[in-house]
Amino acid sequence: MTQNAKGFGGSLEFGAKPAVISIDLMRCYFDPASSFCLPSEDCLESSARVIAVARRLGVPVIHTRVVFGADGIDGGVFLQKIPALRGLIGDVAMNEIMPNVKPLSDELVIVKQYASAFFGTSLSSTLRTMGVDTVLILGVTTSGCIRATAVDAVQLGFIPIVVRESVDDRGPAPHEANLFDLQAKYAEVLSEGEAIANMEKIARDGDV
Amino acid sequence: MTQNAKGFGGSLEFGAKPAVISIDLMRCYFDPASSFCLPSEDCLESSARVIAVARRLGVPVIHTRVVFGADGIDGGVFLQKIPALRGLIGDVAMNEIMPNVKPLSDELVIVKQYASAFFGTSLSSTLRTMGVDTVLILGVTTSGCIRATAVDAVQLGFIPIVVRESVDDRGPAPHEANLFDLQAKYAEVLSEGEAIANMEKIARDGDV
Amino acid sequence: MTQNAKGFGGSLEFGAKPAVISIDLMRCYFDPASSFCLPSEDCLESSARVIAVARRLGVPVIHTRVVFGADGIDGGVFLQKIPALRGLIGDVAMNEIMPNVKPLSDELVIVKQYASAFFGTSLSSTLRTMGVDTVLILGVTTSGCIRATAVDAVQLGFIPIVVRESVDDRGPAPHEANLFDLQAKYAEVLSEGEAIANMEKIARDGDV
Amino acid sequence: MTQNAKGFGGSLEFGAKPAVISIDLMRCYFDPASSFCLPSEDCLESSARVIAVARRLGVPVIHTRVVFGADGIDGGVFLQKIPALRGLIGDVAMNEIMPNVKPLSDELVIVKQYASAFFGTSLSSTLRTMGVDTVLILGVTTSGCIRATAVDAVQLGFIPIVVRESVDDRGPAPHEANLFDLQAKYAEVLSEGEAIANMEKIARDGDV
Repeated sequence: MTQNAKGFGGSLEFGAKPAVISIDLMRCYFDPASSFCLPSEDCLESSARVIAVARRLGVPVIHTRVVFGADGIDGGVFLQKIPALRGLIGDVAMNEIMPNVKPLSDELVIVKQYASAFFGTSLSSTLRTMGVDTVLILGVTTSGCIRATAVDAVQLGFIPIVVRESVDDRGPAPHEANLFDLQAKYAEVLSEGEAIANMEKIARDGDV
Repeated sequence: MTQNAKGFGGSLEFGAKPAVISIDLMRCYFDPASSFCLPSEDCLESSARVIAVARRLGVPVIHTRVVFGADGIDGGVFLQKIPALRGLIGDVAMNEIMPNVKPLSDELVIVKQYASAFFGTSLSSTLRTMGVDTVLILGVTTSGCIRATAVDAVQLGFIPIVVRESVDDRGPAPHEANLFDLQAKYAEVLSEGEAIANMEKIARDGDV
Repeated sequence: MTQNAKGFGGSLEFGAKPAVISIDLMRCYFDPASSFCLPSEDCLESSARVIAVARRLGVPVIHTRVVFGADGIDGGVFLQKIPALRGLIGDVAMNEIMPNVKPLSDELVIVKQYASAFFGTSLSSTLRTMGVDTVLILGVTTSGCIRATAVDAVQLGFIPIVVRESVDDRGPAPHEANLFDLQAKYAEVLSEGEAIANMEKIARDGDV
Repeated sequence: MTQNAKGFGGSLEFGAKPAVISIDLMRCYFDPASSFCLPSEDCLESSARVIAVARRLGVPVIHTRVVFGADGIDGGVFLQKIPALRGLIGDVAMNEIMPNVKPLSDELVIVKQYASAFFGTSLSSTLRTMGVDTVLILGVTTSGCIRATAVDAVQLGFIPIVVRESVDDRGPAPHEANLFDLQAKYAEVLSEGEAIANMEKIARDGDV
């Protein structure tokens, strides 16, 4: 672990047993008909490349999507704050996972209602049972579910690796501001190439 | 509840039963000898004013501080990422709560190890038992424990009110960027005057 | 609040805003083809009566069922301990909710993987947002999901009311032993008649 | 993993990285002046023997005790149900850990308010960061904090080993009934000798 002079931003080491968590890569973020739509699909394509490598190497891939129940009762205060989330009540086209990153039949798909992939789900228990120590975080959005998931990962004892090209936001300002905070306090922000190289190194060392 | 055209940033209404959560106003944030030191004490003075009004009106005030156990074992990945946190192992001068906002003997002081005041603590249960629906969040830092606490408050079903002058960060950029995200997605960012006026209105209506 | 001489078993008061939580009343507990099958359907009929009253009075009803994802990855250590739970992977006949207590289209159905209805779900957030302070617990089994849910309810700040005739187990010994522990430490165990009378009293007082 | 004909009670294997969790071995459970007092100190002596072996082998030992804050505000519904818990407000003689199992200066002592050692604490994060997969549970009481901790251990993805002679209750009926439920659904109940033998085997294999 290295650190700067002030004791912030220590470097977390990639652990021995990673998993990929692909966050909310649903149609609503890529369809101009949705108010959640991003300006670019680049993060989706990057995520697909990271997922392809993980599958080839046997690194587990877990997906999340957002589905609210009857009338959004389970959306709580979050749905009051972001009324557009009502578009994700029930199983609808807008909360389908995009074809580029479609889950395989043996991959876990977690349904969540809140920002963090760990909140109100059994994700942490699943990772603990699998012996996972490191989570590669992909998906959307940087200022929303990516950051909330990374903060919870640290709090729960997992090493969060945020893959820079595989996450995105509706604008460059919140994207960059949140990557800055994440790197300073909660996660390692790696490039797609670095994240892939780390997975390959672990696979060569026989640890996956 | 009002909302903008795109369905983001709905306004959360101040609830009927607020509590003040004063986050981590410890010496380490105000003593130049600490690497956590902020450039200003303005947020401390603002917090003291909000707390004084809450006490006068009978609004519960709950305080948090950070204390790690033996050798920081309970600091987990967070301590690896921010080695400066090792300065908060045990009961030391640096994690004392500042005299300006010193807890009264009948006020709860919660010891935490992580960013969110709700993580690894029984705060949520305490608020639920008290019937609290709204949390006024004061303290430091905007990009750290304030944001993490506000996100968890939403997720747990509490309405988070972040008091603009009562929170601060080591620099204006993360302070403003995080207030922007908080207002857009997770909380109402109110001025000190608005927050106080809301507490006084509830007290007049007899709901506290 | 009354209490006995030793300070155990204080009586919790029924709160002002109840909700009914109907736990895991799935086919597997009532179909002799399943290893989970109970000797009697009495608890199912009692639950149906309590739910009917709740609906008439406007008390919210929330249902839970158990569904595991791909290959039971999300079953963790629990699935290792109880291999019969593998019969609840995916949406199958055995984890359908029984027709007698079929959820209405506007009632929330929570999917869970573990014993407590609060674990790995957003139930607590939903109840908090609704302002619920008291949970009437129905379903199966007394020694399993009922007790685990009641313990978590206390821990999370909700008053748990276990309805004696509406819960059951595979044998009378664990049923009675667990009702004893619940009454002593965690909940009020009320008869079906008492539970219904309490809901009706609250409705008359206009609090629901 | 073995299992019986009905698919209950699969045997969990002792994992590669255990920790000992010593639950609430406080004076109140062994002092006749307290309403919590047990009829015997046998479990305390057994716990001391297990802890001594763990220390010799380098297996981490973590202790819990119960302390409530100002006026028991953080005791929530639990304190309403068990008013005798008010005797554990503040740091008092009754919530001191017994001398026989006194924590070493480099061992973590977790302060909790509720039944489960995982509830409202950062224990799970600490264990996850240490790479622990198995928890040996000692202490009191079988029907209270031991069971609640074992259930949460399973739910959180840890393998719970309850050490039969190292846990106890105020009477034999709840003690035995809860060991039965634990073995059937949530944990392996091992004798003190078996638990020690498993720790020694792991140490010989070089895994601790």
